[in-house]
Amino acid sequence: MILTVTLNAALDVTYTVESLVPGATHRVLGVSQRAGGKGINVARVLHALGHPVLATGLASSAVLSDLTVPHSFASISGESRRTVTVVAEGEATLFNEPGPEVSAAEWLAFVDHFRSLAQDATVVALSGSMPPGVPPDGYAQLVSTVDCPTIVDTSGAALRHALAAHPDVVKPNADELREVTGLESPQAGASTLLRDGARAVVATLGPDGLLAVTERESWQLAPPGKLAGNPTGAGDACVAGIAAGLHTGAAWPALLREAVALSAAAVLHPVAGGFDTNAYAQLRANLPPARKAL
Amino acid sequence: MILTVTLNAALDVTYTVESLVPGATHRVLGVSQRAGGKGINVARVLHALGHPVLATGLASSAVLSDLTVPHSFASISGESRRTVTVVAEGEATLFNEPGPEVSAAEWLAFVDHFRSLAQDATVVALSGSMPPGVPPDGYAQLVSTVDCPTIVDTSGAALRHALAAHPDVVKPNADELREVTGLESPQAGASTLLRDGARAVVATLGPDGLLAVTERESWQLAPPGKLAGNPTGAGDACVAGIAAGLHTGAAWPALLREAVALSAAAVLHPVAGGFDTNAYAQLRANLPPARKAL
Repeated sequence: MILTVTLNAALDVTYTVESLVPGATHRVLGVSQRAGGKGINVARVLHALGHPVLATGLASSAVLSDLTVPHSFASISGESRRTVTVVAEGEATLFNEPGPEVSAAEWLAFVDHFRSLAQDATVVALSGSMPPGVPPDGYAQLVSTVDCPTIVDTSGAALRHALAAHPDVVKPNADELREVTGLESPQAGASTLLRDGARAVVATLGPDGLLAVTERESWQLAPPGKLAGNPTGAGDACVAGIAAGLHTGAAWPALLREAVALSAAAVLHPVAGGFDTNAYAQLRANLPPARKAL
Repeated sequence: MILTVTLNAALDVTYTVESLVPGATHRVLGVSQRAGGKGINVARVLHALGHPVLATGLASSAVLSDLTVPHSFASISGESRRTVTVVAEGEATLFNEPGPEVSAAEWLAFVDHFRSLAQDATVVALSGSMPPGVPPDGYAQLVSTVDCPTIVDTSGAALRHALAAHPDVVKPNADELREVTGLESPQAGASTLLRDGARAVVATLGPDGLLAVTERESWQLAPPGKLAGNPTGAGDACVAGIAAGLHTGAAWPALLREAVALSAAAVLHPVAGGFDTNAYAQLRANLPPARKAL
C-alpha cells in the first residue's frame, strides 16, 4: 500500500458568515470540520482513485473522528492544531494555529510505529510542516528507515534536512524552491536539490505545470489553458499522482501526465483533498505525454 | 450551595494575531481556551468570593476539561458550540457558533439531574441562551421544580416564557428589557415584567448602574463615575452579586451594593468571569447603599 505521513495534522474548521467585519460579533451560519493536513489530503485523493492507501502521522483523537480514509496515527498528548477558515461573500480568511509540542518520547514512539507500517508500503509520501518538538531532521530519520520509494513535500529547513536521506522525489512549489535554494530559475533550483541529495525533483509551477528533473533528464508538462478555482490541495493531488505512478511502476512521462491531470482537477474542486472527477478523466485522456525540458 | 445553570455552554477560544486582514492567511501567535457561558462565569465569580457553588447545565466533555469551578453537567451527544475571538491590535472580532441540537431525551435527563442537584441549593441562577432542541419554556420548567430563590438572566422568548414560573429575580439589561417589553423606560419595562410574573426585576443599565423593582419598592445604585474596560461579563458578575445576597439573606440595599461593586470590578477585568479584586474591595467599602428610586 501507499503510506502517507502527516506529522502536523489539523482539524480544519470552516465558518460561513454573512460578511466579515473586523471588530464586530458574527453569527456563524454554517460550521463544517474535518481532518486536515497535506498527507491526509494525499491519502484522500489516492483512496478516491482506488489505490490501497494508509494515512499515518501524529494527531490527537478529535482530529480523526470522522476520517474515512484508512488510517493509523500515533496519538499525542497535546491537542492537534486547528485551522479556522472564515468564508464571507466568496472570500476566505484563514487562521492557522501553531502545532502542539510533541515530546521526545512521542516522536520515538511514532518512528517505531512508522517503521512497522512502512514494511508493507510500496511508496511512502511525507507531506507538510513539522510540529514543535519534532527534530529538524525528522523527515530524514523517517526516509532513512524505508526501503521503498519516498516522496517528501515540505519546505524550508525541514526540506533542507530531508535531502541528506536521499528521498526519491522532493516536490517543492516555485516559491519553496526559490526560498530553499536562493535561485530564480526552477531548473537551476532543482539541480541544486539533486546535488544536495534528492534523487529527483518535481517542482509545481502553477499555470506552467510540472518540471521533473532527475540526474539524467528533465521533463515538463503544463495543463491546457488557465484554470480558475481553488489551488489549495493541488500540490497534494500532484503528490498523489506521483505516488500512484511510483506504485504502479509508471515511466516519468506517464507519471507526470497523471500528476498534472490530478493537480488540475484538484484546482477545479472547491475543497482540498478532492478533485473534479470529470475533469480528471478528460485531462487524462487528452493531455500529451510530458516532453523533455531543455 | 448556589447552583448556576448554563444550558448553552461554549468553548471560548481566543486567538491573538498581528493584524486582522479579511481575505488573508493569519499565523495565530497565541491560543487560549476555556469553558464559557454565562452561568459558568457567574459560578467563577461566586467561587472566587468563597461562596459554595456548583455549576450545572448541558455541555460536551471537551468544554469542561479545564474548568476549575465545582461542576456537574449533563453530557450531550453533540459538540458544544465554540466561540472564537480574534484579538488584533487591541480590537476583538467574535465568531459565535450556533449551539448543538439537544434531543428530547437529553433535555429530560437534564431536568432530572437538575432537580436532584437543586434539592441542596440555597439559590439557583439560570443564565444565557438555550440551544436548539430545548423547549421554549425550558427555564420555566426548571424554575417551577425549585423551592429556593431563583434568578433568570436571559432574553427574548426564553425570558418571556420564564416569567410564567414566577422567578424571584429576572435580570435583563436595558436593551433586553426594551426588546421584550417594547417600552423605552426601564421602570415601565420592569413593571411589565412584574405584572407578567417576575417577583423582582434587576435591570443593568450600564453607566446608570442597577435598577431593582419589586412589587412594593424600587431601588437604584450607580457605580461612581465612568468605567473604562471590558463590559462582557459585567452582567454575570451582577447575577453573582444578587445570588450571593440571596444566599446570605441580605436586604435589597446591601444586595444591590454587592451587585454594583462586582459588576464594576468585572468591567475593570479583561476576561469575563473575573473581576478586579482591589477595585471590588474599594467599591464595596465606599459605595453608598442603594437609594429608593422614584
